[in-house]
Amino acid sequence: MAEFLREKAAVAEREHLPGSFVQVVADFLAAGGKRLRPLLCITGWHAAVGERTPPPAVIRVAAALEMFHAVALIHDDVMDQSSLRRGEPTVHRALTGQRIASGDSHESAERFGVGGAILVGDLVLTWSDELVHTADLTPGELSGLLPLIDMMRAEVMYGQYLDLAATGSPTDDVEQALTIARYKTAKYSVERPLHIGAVLGGAGHDLLDALTDYALPLGEAFQLRDDLLGAFGDSAATGKPRMDDLRDGKHTALVALALRAASGPSADLLRDLLGRPDLTDAQAERVRAVLIATGARDDIEDMIARHRDRIGELLSARGAIHPGALPVLHHLADSATRRSA
Amino acid sequence: MAEFLREKAAVAEREHLPGSFVQVVADFLAAGGKRLRPLLCITGWHAAVGERTPPPAVIRVAAALEMFHAVALIHDDVMDQSSLRRGEPTVHRALTGQRIASGDSHESAERFGVGGAILVGDLVLTWSDELVHTADLTPGELSGLLPLIDMMRAEVMYGQYLDLAATGSPTDDVEQALTIARYKTAKYSVERPLHIGAVLGGAGHDLLDALTDYALPLGEAFQLRDDLLGAFGDSAATGKPRMDDLRDGKHTALVALALRAASGPSADLLRDLLGRPDLTDAQAERVRAVLIATGARDDIEDMIARHRDRIGELLSARGAIHPGALPVLHHLADSATRRSA
Repeated sequence: MAEFLREKAAVAEREHLPGSFVQVVADFLAAGGKRLRPLLCITGWHAAVGERTPPPAVIRVAAALEMFHAVALIHDDVMDQSSLRRGEPTVHRALTGQRIASGDSHESAERFGVGGAILVGDLVLTWSDELVHTADLTPGELSGLLPLIDMMRAEVMYGQYLDLAATGSPTDDVEQALTIARYKTAKYSVERPLHIGAVLGGAGHDLLDALTDYALPLGEAFQLRDDLLGAFGDSAATGKPRMDDLRDGKHTALVALALRAASGPSADLLRDLLGRPDLTDAQAERVRAVLIATGARDDIEDMIARHRDRIGELLSARGAIHPGALPVLHHLADSATRRSA
Repeated sequence: MAEFLREKAAVAEREHLPGSFVQVVADFLAAGGKRLRPLLCITGWHAAVGERTPPPAVIRVAAALEMFHAVALIHDDVMDQSSLRRGEPTVHRALTGQRIASGDSHESAERFGVGGAILVGDLVLTWSDELVHTADLTPGELSGLLPLIDMMRAEVMYGQYLDLAATGSPTDDVEQALTIARYKTAKYSVERPLHIGAVLGGAGHDLLDALTDYALPLGEAFQLRDDLLGAFGDSAATGKPRMDDLRDGKHTALVALALRAASGPSADLLRDLLGRPDLTDAQAERVRAVLIATGARDDIEDMIARHRDRIGELLSARGAIHPGALPVLHHLADSATRRSA
């Protein structure tokens, strides 16, 4: 990925194109992240062929998934008006900051930041495609892969749209929150990366189905853990302000369960405070107290534990999954459901 | 394209995904537009093989270009905060309007409109890919085509970024304005669509070079005409408010030439008024008077006429271009440079 970005920077310089465009992406990708999707892609390949060093083409496609994820995050941060990501300023904030530093008015700098971040996302989407197109796959492999990638992209966009539409006015509809989690996280972040790697390893339907059975509960548990971290996590560890989910009024399963269980003043408090852009620390603490008192937090922990158990059973039965891939799949299930960042 | 969108609407309904997402795109595409890129794609194919009915694969790729262009426009309208496109509300305004109608506050509806339009654009980008991937091309044709599409996308994003960075503070740098026009319009809107069609028709380097020689002056002339329409056009014909370019302070060759030629109070007037979000009709008229008095409008008309002549000579010499494609290429050059909308 670093090499690909260096090439892009060289092209920009040669053609007198704005290099800041490339730099902001390089900075964003260098700031880290869990690299979950590339790891899952390579694990999918292992699940098909056993534990061998993956060929460069598989690594390049794995990098394309990380690049695509950067697009989703860059655009998501514009939509959520988030200021921090991975402990660093988000792309639109970084661009806004550059313009303020060079003497622009706040309004004009903000406009440039938002527009620039939309364009940076669109450009990185093309780069992600380019990584796949230049991965030295056979034309047959490439045409087998592209429909999967198209599906993955459409799924995440639908998930994000459902999420956006529900944000600001959370309800007690737990099913709706889980549908959002399925599209945004379970399918996009877990199932498709595994499938993409597995298909590159020549997987048949049995293996793809087994990976789906693994991916959907894992992805849901991953999102439920994310929701808990969004409300109760330590922002120094997660790299994003922990009040954002509450301030935005995110429609999570956690909040939906609390709204379902709460009555009288507790319910009023949730409806009144969730989604307030000016939520104070003290108000956030009161929301958290209701999330705990209604049992919603414990219920979510139980759901996560049940998913973890189910994944454990599935991996013991294993079926079509190559045994060489099992340790990583176990490890991922464990860390994704227990993580604190 | 309509059939493809109907399929997408059916899938959305079956999967309980938000159908408004599909409808807003269908409305946008149905509102018209010049369909310039699909026409050029098919003309590129004709330039390679002569005037025959193009096969469905070529038509599908041509439709993908129109779909991609919709993405560029949807995102561009968010960045420019434009309210009208093709005489209809822009996507972010349409989504904002839906939410206001259902009782949302203006601020929250606006946020949904902007976020939704970013996502709609990202989804339509995937659909555009999908149209290419399912065009029934041979794997070999597909792998030949994809790098061209990647290049086209990167070029328009760079062009848009340069445009965005220069907007609000136009200078007398005519070269910079022409560079923006080359990336945004000449390469993206003319050269690449022609190349894409030609490559599908089996074109060699000679033909691609001849099409480049035709495309770059035509694209520049097209953009220069657009700049004139942006300042002097009739908004009933163009479908967008004609003060937008002046209010935004677009860095066009027209404005750059005027700034270069203006002195004293005229120069001050341009610097003071261009880019003012609250520009009044009377102020816009004063700007237009300076654009005329400095000779900038006439200079741009001369540049357009010179490009038209050059294209005429080139087409007379014709070289590698199949004679069957010449009438359309002549017609396009004529209408793109003389159009009033």
